[in-house]
Amino acid sequence: MLRLRRHHYPDHHRRILLRLFHHSTFHPQPLDLPLSHPTFQIWSANTSLGKTLVSAGLSSSFLLSPTSSANKKFVYLKPIQTGYPHDSDSRFLFTKLPSLSLRRNFPSSLILSNSILFSSLFAAKSFLSSRDLPFQPQKFNSEMYDLNFREENRISGEEDSSVSELVCKTLFAWEEAVSPHLAAERESGGIVGDSKVIETLGKCLRDGLESESESERGKMEILCIVETAGGVASPGPSGSLQCDLYRPFRLPSILVGDGRLGGISGTISAYESLKLRGYDVVAVVFEDHGLANEVPLMSYLRNRVPVLVLPPLPQDSSNDLMEWFDESHNVFDSLKNIMLLAYSERIQRLCDMPKRAGELFWWPFTQHKLVPEEAVTVIDSRCGENFSVYQDQKNKFIGQQFDACASWWTQGPDATLQIELARDMGYTAARFGHVMFPENVYEPALECAELLLQGVGKGWASRAYFSDNGSTAIEIALKMAFRKFSFDHEVLVDFLGKDTTEKCIELKVLALKGSYHGDTLGAMEAQAPSPYTGFLQQPWYSGRGLFLDPPTVFMYNSKWILSLPEWLYSKIVEHKDITFCSRDEIFYEERDSSDLASIYSSYISQNLLQNPGLKVSGCIGALIIEPVVHAAGGMHMVDPLFQRILVKECQNRKIPVIFDEVFTGFWRLGVETTADLLGCVPDIACYGKLLTGGVIPLAATLATNAVFDSFVGDSKLKALLHGHSYSAHALGCAAAAKSIKWFKDPQTNHNIIPERRLLRELWDLELIQQISSHRTVQRVVALGTLCAIELQAAGCNAGYGSLYAASLLKKLREDGVYMRPLGNVIYLMCGPCSSPEVCSQLLLKLYQRLEEFDKVEEKLKSC
Amino acid sequence: MLRLRRHHYPDHHRRILLRLFHHSTFHPQPLDLPLSHPTFQIWSANTSLGKTLVSAGLSSSFLLSPTSSANKKFVYLKPIQTGYPHDSDSRFLFTKLPSLSLRRNFPSSLILSNSILFSSLFAAKSFLSSRDLPFQPQKFNSEMYDLNFREENRISGEEDSSVSELVCKTLFAWEEAVSPHLAAERESGGIVGDSKVIETLGKCLRDGLESESESERGKMEILCIVETAGGVASPGPSGSLQCDLYRPFRLPSILVGDGRLGGISGTISAYESLKLRGYDVVAVVFEDHGLANEVPLMSYLRNRVPVLVLPPLPQDSSNDLMEWFDESHNVFDSLKNIMLLAYSERIQRLCDMPKRAGELFWWPFTQHKLVPEEAVTVIDSRCGENFSVYQDQKNKFIGQQFDACASWWTQGPDATLQIELARDMGYTAARFGHVMFPENVYEPALECAELLLQGVGKGWASRAYFSDNGSTAIEIALKMAFRKFSFDHEVLVDFLGKDTTEKCIELKVLALKGSYHGDTLGAMEAQAPSPYTGFLQQPWYSGRGLFLDPPTVFMYNSKWILSLPEWLYSKIVEHKDITFCSRDEIFYEERDSSDLASIYSSYISQNLLQNPGLKVSGCIGALIIEPVVHAAGGMHMVDPLFQRILVKECQNRKIPVIFDEVFTGFWRLGVETTADLLGCVPDIACYGKLLTGGVIPLAATLATNAVFDSFVGDSKLKALLHGHSYSAHALGCAAAAKSIKWFKDPQTNHNIIPERRLLRELWDLELIQQISSHRTVQRVVALGTLCAIELQAAGCNAGYGSLYAASLLKKLREDGVYMRPLGNVIYLMCGPCSSPEVCSQLLLKLYQRLEEFDKVEEKLKSC
Repeated sequence: MLRLRRHHYPDHHRRILLRLFHHSTFHPQPLDLPLSHPTFQIWSANTSLGKTLVSAGLSSSFLLSPTSSANKKFVYLKPIQTGYPHDSDSRFLFTKLPSLSLRRNFPSSLILSNSILFSSLFAAKSFLSSRDLPFQPQKFNSEMYDLNFREENRISGEEDSSVSELVCKTLFAWEEAVSPHLAAERESGGIVGDSKVIETLGKCLRDGLESESESERGKMEILCIVETAGGVASPGPSGSLQCDLYRPFRLPSILVGDGRLGGISGTISAYESLKLRGYDVVAVVFEDHGLANEVPLMSYLRNRVPVLVLPPLPQDSSNDLMEWFDESHNVFDSLKNIMLLAYSERIQRLCDMPKRAGELFWWPFTQHKLVPEEAVTVIDSRCGENFSVYQDQKNKFIGQQFDACASWWTQGPDATLQIELARDMGYTAARFGHVMFPENVYEPALECAELLLQGVGKGWASRAYFSDNGSTAIEIALKMAFRKFSFDHEVLVDFLGKDTTEKCIELKVLALKGSYHGDTLGAMEAQAPSPYTGFLQQPWYSGRGLFLDPPTVFMYNSKWILSLPEWLYSKIVEHKDITFCSRDEIFYEERDSSDLASIYSSYISQNLLQNPGLKVSGCIGALIIEPVVHAAGGMHMVDPLFQRILVKECQNRKIPVIFDEVFTGFWRLGVETTADLLGCVPDIACYGKLLTGGVIPLAATLATNAVFDSFVGDSKLKALLHGHSYSAHALGCAAAAKSIKWFKDPQTNHNIIPERRLLRELWDLELIQQISSHRTVQRVVALGTLCAIELQAAGCNAGYGSLYAASLLKKLREDGVYMRPLGNVIYLMCGPCSSPEVCSQLLLKLYQRLEEFDKVEEKLKSC
Repeated sequence: MLRLRRHHYPDHHRRILLRLFHHSTFHPQPLDLPLSHPTFQIWSANTSLGKTLVSAGLSSSFLLSPTSSANKKFVYLKPIQTGYPHDSDSRFLFTKLPSLSLRRNFPSSLILSNSILFSSLFAAKSFLSSRDLPFQPQKFNSEMYDLNFREENRISGEEDSSVSELVCKTLFAWEEAVSPHLAAERESGGIVGDSKVIETLGKCLRDGLESESESERGKMEILCIVETAGGVASPGPSGSLQCDLYRPFRLPSILVGDGRLGGISGTISAYESLKLRGYDVVAVVFEDHGLANEVPLMSYLRNRVPVLVLPPLPQDSSNDLMEWFDESHNVFDSLKNIMLLAYSERIQRLCDMPKRAGELFWWPFTQHKLVPEEAVTVIDSRCGENFSVYQDQKNKFIGQQFDACASWWTQGPDATLQIELARDMGYTAARFGHVMFPENVYEPALECAELLLQGVGKGWASRAYFSDNGSTAIEIALKMAFRKFSFDHEVLVDFLGKDTTEKCIELKVLALKGSYHGDTLGAMEAQAPSPYTGFLQQPWYSGRGLFLDPPTVFMYNSKWILSLPEWLYSKIVEHKDITFCSRDEIFYEERDSSDLASIYSSYISQNLLQNPGLKVSGCIGALIIEPVVHAAGGMHMVDPLFQRILVKECQNRKIPVIFDEVFTGFWRLGVETTADLLGCVPDIACYGKLLTGGVIPLAATLATNAVFDSFVGDSKLKALLHGHSYSAHALGCAAAAKSIKWFKDPQTNHNIIPERRLLRELWDLELIQQISSHRTVQRVVALGTLCAIELQAAGCNAGYGSLYAASLLKKLREDGVYMRPLGNVIYLMCGPCSSPEVCSQLLLKLYQRLEEFDKVEEKLKSC
């Protein structure tokens, strides 16, 4: 299926490709979660608070209630069990339910099973010897012993009665009755990775909820429970906290609280730990100890989450609990009803969301007429780089999609950073909320400014100006640049002697065609005319700049090629392609002494001298560029030599230089700042998007001391009178401080090559070359976290308004890749911490779909 | 001192005034917290984990170490004690330390005291009878029995040796050994409010840290410990959780963890509950139970917070623990050193912050040259409406200041909402981080849109467009309005038949002089020329509007007066003041049929016909107004009749109407939307600031279906091509959804008058009249959460650049009121939930300082 064209992979590569490729066609995705029936996770505030009693009570309430004639199944999953086989919570249910059934004279048939899938060698040997079964060494691979034992029980009911089924499964078990991380460490053959736990659980959930026959589907009532071990933040076998381990599923949760003295605190804190990981708690339930703990708990929860109280357990540990279960029956019925109601309300809401969205939202950059209800994506949550998307196809389920548009180019966090940021957001909101900035100082703003000036601004910037988004950061930068220019060029000799409202001179920017700096009017004025700037969109736009057409570079047919604009084409004597041996070569400073450099230089000088592009005469008061990559303009890589010369020519003439790093900053292109790629520094630079790790809006405009000085004086009126209410808001600054540190620390970001201050290569070169040689592909730009692909397209298929890529991207969503086109340009974008392995999987899925796309396009042409 | 002029208060009023006034002059403020010496709070993950042992260990490590020759004092405060007098943690220290001292042959003198301040009647009687002391009924007032008992002990040391002092205090005690909220409820005379606990604790902290004589100060080493009761989220006596109760002090914290099975989870959750309330945890310490719980804890804490392990306690409960204290000695020494280091680092950082801020920040709207280091406010945190401000005057301390600028007009949360928002921010970041908006739907964005359209947009709006701040919301509104205008007036007959980049017509806005809509160029173009718009600030500004000078209203000399602009002055036949009997009268719809209404109407018609204010000929394509109050323009209240007629005249001519409610929306003026005050609705409205409750930037532009329809078509190019990366970001939408509901719910906002959909009056009318009659005051506007006062000023003292109010506001900061001037206009701004009592205190403090200001100004004039 993977047709290799023109290039051949070395053997080891092919093996990787095949493996990855195989993986990419595995359906359903390992984390897909069916929503056909309710599934809940049971957590508790501490050990020994009765999670398993709650599970058992629910199973009896669900299976043994006579209200419905449908067949029923209760699936109980215990992913992690220590103290095994002596302690087995799944076996507790398996053995308890028949007694309860008999006691209640349950009329229907009852089918019960209990399984154990994997265990440590210790636990396996104990278990096998207790059952007189042989130990089979071949069942032990790298991760735990594959016990795969199942026991059954069957109680016949009245004839023609419905059937109730209890399915109990222990997924992983250890012998010692300690925390799983200790058991896993101490017991031979006891180590298991988080991904194995999660994948096994996913499989069991799908098996439990979907294995019934087609004809039965919909008729059978199913309730599924996943019971955790210990407290909410108790470590799992790898040491990851269980609340983090299970987060990708984000199952609706029941919290078993603590009714004892001190239990209010423990219950509230456990609840907060769950909330801090994005879980929804549907109910709190706890054993009564006579302290009325439900009163403060309900007050804390503002009656939004029901709190249920179970009767006290008998003190005698040999008690068979039958009476206790009788007494608790009503509570478990209520709990079950709360859960079933929560499930149906959730499904209803998820179902309704696309319609509601289409009615109430006004999406940016979106022609609503082109978005039918079924095209609306319902995002239930995100975990690291993945969306959890509600899907309602043959079956309802929550599927995983890699957020390959990096949620509009803002995202960076992996799952671990996301949870750390969540805690920091909570902390910062609790500590500061928002406090006003001017003339004040508070820790997050100060730390953020320090990190900016020591990081992206290192070596040139000395002041940080905060605003809310890239567009405002650009408007501020323009105001700074024009003031600096006016100051240097004595446009304003005496700032306050003049009527400052009078227009002194027409100031323009020098900018590149295809660059894009934001949507507010000031930022728009700094870009060349485009579909974004027409009268239809912004009647006030006039285009106050001299816009040069830059040379660009891209990979085509496995080679990096320089693409010449018209003006340059005529200046190159020999009309042959200029190519580069590698991407690195494009950035070599040695190119400064090339003939091409001279041609660039004289072209720029000439333009600066004559301003031929300006309709009205005026001065170039600032240069503004997106360094290296024009993002919204179509992911074009500009020849860095051209930009470097541009910067030098302007700085020689005391024209302030603005780097718009809103897109390119913070590792987007593999370096913290593109100043490192270009080999020159600006006077002013703008940051946004990835600045906060992508969790919250914040922007910063950095400036040199010389720029700042042109605003210093005796009058307030000389100050920069621009600001937004949330300037340097604490949450944004705290998120930025955390993310800046996280991304550049090799301890937390494994992609960092410390000695070189850059990211390792995320996109496999051979795969990229392969794609660049594909018949459907016009050019590729792969750099840092970006891999952009322009599809071959002509006529109305090309350009920003084109819908050409829609069918391709629809297919990729089925593969679990969420992309968004810029007309016929598509791109994969990951975070600074994304693993190259994941990137390769994305490339392979893309490659496969390009092959299909090619065939369809061919067919269309031949029709 | 409070000179009442012209008006006299009725007796009951005067009594209130005097009481409030007395309160306002009480120095120091009840929550001022000295930083001269370290103070820490000890929390624990559950009851009975050994908080008091840690306190005792610290006291011995601090007092009995021979390393220093200085006198030492260890202050131990136990604010809440149940099980008293049988259990008394302060008495445990008081009795344990002498034994430890003898055991260690401590050479210096040791002075010990133990006090109990207040108790329930039960506890008082038990205590008194155990000591053979008489019960004195007069010591029982409304809140608990005033025991005020103190015992002392003194151990003489070697001659000339230094003195070590242990001060132990129990603040409030109950007899039953249950949670304080239960004891308080069950025991006669056991009820005490949070404010009493906090004030008493504040006083004890100040007494403990500052009572030494002037000569001793600085020489004596002091360490203060405040020990909580139960777990971090255990309820205090009122039912408030202790982590909420003590939050105003935000003391640096030590968390006593749980070393048992399940203890990792409990410790982590307790830590997270503290973080979710903005506490800094300096160290975690717990008793070893052989489970190596420190390993996963340190991994979770990423080694940023030290984790210390205490040796196991003897099983025998009669053990005197002397050997255990010996074994633990090194751990307590380490803990003490960690605490002392954390304290000195914190102080150093707080000290350095103003200087660092002055070096690195570029504050908006700030002339840096006019902000000396000592004028920089260091905000350590906020709690509800109050800043905690680091102050370094005679002594270092953290003082409380009411945030009367509502942190640039954004703030609304009380302390309870702040903590709820913090949890929601953590939850939302963990669940969503940020996910991209176009063509997607996720719960917070949908809920926010629903609440906006059912709330501020009710009855007219049907679409919500999200952006990041008020300025971008305005630019979007302008783009919407111009498209709608072009559509209605057939400026673009066939949208896509034309070259849409071509300019079709010159579109202008109709706006009012003195209104302000933001700092980006597009928003600026919609305001009349001002100091903000000059060449010096924004060389691209041209002022694309017809700007009318509106009539305004204000209170002066206790009367509401209509202030006439020049054009109107000539039209009023009888030149006498137009006054109103009450503020309500200004809003009466009956005014629509007045002569004044006809004058307004014909003036507006005339202007719309002739466009005399437009330099270049063009069309009025939109009306934009700040309804009722021009905020940044100087807090001017515009005659609502004038605005209502303006809206009608424009809508009659199919000119779209934009309400800029960025400042005025969400109860700022006492109503959720000012459309209710004006009695008319717009086509488009913009929201920001208070939208999120003031915790995070988010803006929304609402529009009618008719406006939306003018963007619907077959081409993407007809869509509104404007957007920001963080459009409808999940955190902002979640904060907005919570705040919108909170502010309008009478259960959570006690200021809401439900049947009238408005806030009760927050500013005492008599006090406002009093101020409006003050010699220094030119006008007052008090409406909703706003009370603006223009000071009498002439020449350079007037206007935006004026520093006239600086000395007045400096004094008010000493009174704990943080205000910020708009030139010679000052204002108090509270939140929608602020209590009228607090507002009255603010007014009184202001009144008092106006009196002083008047005297100083008089003196200056006479010199």
